[in-house]
Amino acid sequence: MKTRVTELFGIELPIIAGGMVWCSGWRLAAAVSRAGGLGLIGAGSMNADVLREHISKCREAVGDKPFGVNMPLIKPDAAQLMEVVAQEQVPVVFTSAGSPKKWTSWLHEHGIKVAHVVASSLFARKCEEAGVDAVVAEGFEAGGHNGREETTTLCLIPAVRRATSLPLIAAGGIATGDAILAMRVLGAEGVQLGTRFALTQESSASEAFKLRCLDLNEGDTRLLLRKLSPTRLVRGGFYDSIEQAENRGASGEELLEIIGVGASRRGIYEGDIDNGELEIGQVASLLKGRNVETVEQVMRELTEEYAQALRQVQNF
Amino acid sequence: MKTRVTELFGIELPIIAGGMVWCSGWRLAAAVSRAGGLGLIGAGSMNADVLREHISKCREAVGDKPFGVNMPLIKPDAAQLMEVVAQEQVPVVFTSAGSPKKWTSWLHEHGIKVAHVVASSLFARKCEEAGVDAVVAEGFEAGGHNGREETTTLCLIPAVRRATSLPLIAAGGIATGDAILAMRVLGAEGVQLGTRFALTQESSASEAFKLRCLDLNEGDTRLLLRKLSPTRLVRGGFYDSIEQAENRGASGEELLEIIGVGASRRGIYEGDIDNGELEIGQVASLLKGRNVETVEQVMRELTEEYAQALRQVQNF
Repeated sequence: MKTRVTELFGIELPIIAGGMVWCSGWRLAAAVSRAGGLGLIGAGSMNADVLREHISKCREAVGDKPFGVNMPLIKPDAAQLMEVVAQEQVPVVFTSAGSPKKWTSWLHEHGIKVAHVVASSLFARKCEEAGVDAVVAEGFEAGGHNGREETTTLCLIPAVRRATSLPLIAAGGIATGDAILAMRVLGAEGVQLGTRFALTQESSASEAFKLRCLDLNEGDTRLLLRKLSPTRLVRGGFYDSIEQAENRGASGEELLEIIGVGASRRGIYEGDIDNGELEIGQVASLLKGRNVETVEQVMRELTEEYAQALRQVQNF
Repeated sequence: MKTRVTELFGIELPIIAGGMVWCSGWRLAAAVSRAGGLGLIGAGSMNADVLREHISKCREAVGDKPFGVNMPLIKPDAAQLMEVVAQEQVPVVFTSAGSPKKWTSWLHEHGIKVAHVVASSLFARKCEEAGVDAVVAEGFEAGGHNGREETTTLCLIPAVRRATSLPLIAAGGIATGDAILAMRVLGAEGVQLGTRFALTQESSASEAFKLRCLDLNEGDTRLLLRKLSPTRLVRGGFYDSIEQAENRGASGEELLEIIGVGASRRGIYEGDIDNGELEIGQVASLLKGRNVETVEQVMRELTEEYAQALRQVQNF
């Protein structure tokens, strides 16, 4: 599984754990990096002090293995958080939800490798112009915030592959070793998994959230909030109130009022399954009935499945 | 490319051309079957007499090669159309938009092989109980009528693969040989392509429709009409009037009134790009800038790409 992505980040396996709000603390990031992948701390739900603490603990846990931070550029305190990653000499930053032009040069000046998350080939080209080191192309199946084009991973990866020569990481709908190989067939050189890692023991999400997400059927996550920022949510009380409002034609302002403050913390971190905002990828239903596994178990299964799928292709 | 799907239908390549309204007349079906795949006549836009004529011409054109008919079971005249396929001894019928239990035994009694189109593993299990010969699993990226679960092909194929031991045909978002191999990696034994064949010279769609669909950008098709039957449409005048109505919370009845009668015929067959209903898959944007190709060119390119992708996997 050596690719330009493993080379770029100095990792053994081209498997990256997405930096997810309320899930991706230092424990999850460190476990993935220790298992040979690249773990990302999710700065989206952290202030500067909390982020600094997580970086420091992650570094201690991984030793000399690389790890990274996911930084949603839309955050009001993004500049402050960027100062932290530079001061702490984080080896890799994944930027998202903003322009790749804004921070790439600055991060490079601080010796930090940069990947940027896109949902279209148009933005992939902007990544190349901005000089990022790798591009993450994330499809419609992904949990949480999502692209406006609603392009699925199957359609997106070939489009981005044509649009840029950058190392390409596929994301959205990937939770098995078979899917990793399928993504490589489409031209990806690595994968970013969110859902699968959000539901491990090392994820900082609440047990209630994990158990709910390990019990979903097909169709139990949907993309809503297109009038604000399209977001994939899990069915439940929070989801219902948004869907009902949208069905009667509620405006963006009305939707903002329904969402209120702290909804994703309440749902994911505090485990208020009925009233909190629950974000997970569509692929969760493929994991139905599983236990909350360790990162080590997940990484082992992914690599075994990948190897087996690769053997089967020899018979095609 | 020998699989259980090629064996079942007696074809050389496990590539099926979906039976699409206003596109899949005898010319398209025959061209695909002559090129080694399985061409389907789309009965969705035909009455009994028209269907009989297309079957007869298709049989003449294919000689002893197999072909099939796609039958949307929701059609008011489905029983009449079934009599035609039985009388004409069509070798294969693909049923969709209804229960697989309704017609499978009857078709088998008439010596006809049956595949059923599903959008969930729940319905795939029903197919197995109904005794169908193969299941087509079609994801969210597909054009036209679509499943309620909005499960993408990448998430759907592994789910259906687990749910049934039937020969499995992947559909939705597939337009290249790479994607065919990716689907096989996920457990599919054949593929059904709609978009790619709808835009060939042999398709009976209007030139204006084909040229519009060969000029789409990512995000230019969307799933609308969730309050009726979820349908993937191409952006344009017809699309806009539906989207605007949905955004203000229009009811199903209001939407039906906006759709009116004959909208897909007007858009796809007559080429009224501004006011007609245009249905195509999300993967159309991957074909942007191509000419209207022949089926032979498409089949040759698909097999060449597939072979090259398979060679590349040897280096993984």
